[in-house]
Amino acid sequence: MEEFCFGVDVGGTTVKMGLFAGLAEPLHTWEIPTRTEDGGKNILPDIREAMSREMVERGIAPDQVVGAGVGIPGPVTDDGVVNHCVNLGWPVVHVREQLSNMFYHLPIRVGNDANVAALGEAWFGGGKGYRNMVMLTLGTGLGGGVIMNGRIVHGSHGAGGEVGHMPIYTEATRVCNCGNTGCLEQIASATGLVHKAREVLVHNTFDSVLRGKKNFTAKDVLDAYLAGDPAGKITVECMLDFLGRGMAIIATVVDPDVFVIGGGVSKTGPWLMEALKERFDHYAFFGCRDTLVLPAKLGNDAGMYGAAALAITKE
Amino acid sequence: MEEFCFGVDVGGTTVKMGLFAGLAEPLHTWEIPTRTEDGGKNILPDIREAMSREMVERGIAPDQVVGAGVGIPGPVTDDGVVNHCVNLGWPVVHVREQLSNMFYHLPIRVGNDANVAALGEAWFGGGKGYRNMVMLTLGTGLGGGVIMNGRIVHGSHGAGGEVGHMPIYTEATRVCNCGNTGCLEQIASATGLVHKAREVLVHNTFDSVLRGKKNFTAKDVLDAYLAGDPAGKITVECMLDFLGRGMAIIATVVDPDVFVIGGGVSKTGPWLMEALKERFDHYAFFGCRDTLVLPAKLGNDAGMYGAAALAITKE
Repeated sequence: MEEFCFGVDVGGTTVKMGLFAGLAEPLHTWEIPTRTEDGGKNILPDIREAMSREMVERGIAPDQVVGAGVGIPGPVTDDGVVNHCVNLGWPVVHVREQLSNMFYHLPIRVGNDANVAALGEAWFGGGKGYRNMVMLTLGTGLGGGVIMNGRIVHGSHGAGGEVGHMPIYTEATRVCNCGNTGCLEQIASATGLVHKAREVLVHNTFDSVLRGKKNFTAKDVLDAYLAGDPAGKITVECMLDFLGRGMAIIATVVDPDVFVIGGGVSKTGPWLMEALKERFDHYAFFGCRDTLVLPAKLGNDAGMYGAAALAITKE
Repeated sequence: MEEFCFGVDVGGTTVKMGLFAGLAEPLHTWEIPTRTEDGGKNILPDIREAMSREMVERGIAPDQVVGAGVGIPGPVTDDGVVNHCVNLGWPVVHVREQLSNMFYHLPIRVGNDANVAALGEAWFGGGKGYRNMVMLTLGTGLGGGVIMNGRIVHGSHGAGGEVGHMPIYTEATRVCNCGNTGCLEQIASATGLVHKAREVLVHNTFDSVLRGKKNFTAKDVLDAYLAGDPAGKITVECMLDFLGRGMAIIATVVDPDVFVIGGGVSKTGPWLMEALKERFDHYAFFGCRDTLVLPAKLGNDAGMYGAAALAITKE
């Protein structure tokens, strides 16, 4: 008998959903809006309704479904409880229990969206075929996820994989969103690149293509680097150095097979993986120098894939 | 029926052995010499002989033994193979297979001694009662072990927990034994403290109790710190700062419930755990600030206890 599961990635505006049969590509993917009004009370019923409709249309019975995985943009306890998720308008919501109660009492597994996306890349994407992977998502901030033996390392406070807040950026001049100073994401993120480039322009008098732009972006900084611009060069080399060092540090803790690099900044091209691998090798403990640095493959779908992996995984 | 297991910690001069019945204190512990001559070919037969004799004396049948765990002072593959262990005189030795073949074909589990000692502290010692623990052993070097969900995180090259080689000691002036510069153990270890204190004395002219001693030890440096000596103060505060920062970094990767601190340097007293907790809190991501810092409890027996835990653990 074929067994199905659902992968559900809940975002602030849309819920990405997928119907999977084992660890193959999804049979169907679709989206529904995230109704955050009224304390987000419609979100779980909407998800339940969408899954049930899909089952009816395909003639799938509840006993053919092993369960559903759900990624949530906020911290999740081991029991699948979400405490005050601002993006969804939620107070305390017992996601696992509530969704299971309204969905044939099937097993529901819930995780933080960054960790769930890392699981997706590990099982279906850039880290496929490796048991131990660390995902780094270079977006507005620096997200992360640690996968050991194919399972998420949540940690004791759900802070496993919060490597963006590793206190190693000794050149930081600002306070991070988290309240500390010196977090890796203050340089290794889109926001970090822009701030650093602004500092470089203020402290130097050389010409730069960035001086002509009023509000330049991280992409502008990366393009400037690739064009040989001096401000781009100083900025991006600073990021590469701290991020490569950070990866070497991570390797002394969990020693992954592979680092998978995703997020908007990673779209600059394959040169980024090569440059990070070079910096990593410079700093890495000798036992870890064959660790790979590979690009993420699933983009914004990683969370949906990872939620399906979560549903299939038995812990 | 009562079930037994053996914990075996193989050191360069003695093998520490224990007979356990489940997760209680050992029924009997003893030592045998490690015969490293002739390529260490007697080591495994000696261990086998010691375990068999113990079983005969207590009337324990092979089907009452769930297996044995073995800690080895070197890297161990997932298959229980040891490649060139200098301390034991070993070339390539298939420890798991060979010992099982000569010991009633019982299951044998093999691990690196630092990781196995961490497992011992997690199950029987300073980390007992916590699922996620990081052990830091402040000895001649800085050893480490990462335990998540009660299991060792070996990593892909056996380098999980090699946090002594985390490249964060930016003030390093020497090359580490591993070939890199800037490893945390260059300050956070007995050797690191002595080197740093010597540098402090060279670069300053103030009086210090350490100037009168020709070959001072890490204990002398710690005693000088506690007595308010200026060289002791600069040296030990440097170590506390880098080690506290290193612990905050580790917490962003695996987020343990507790750090357990062992090794010779930790014998200076409970003030060390309090001082490290203070530095950790300063650098830690806000989600991790209730993480505990506790002393190790098992001393040199941690490896034997951990080997027993390894035998009992089913992965």
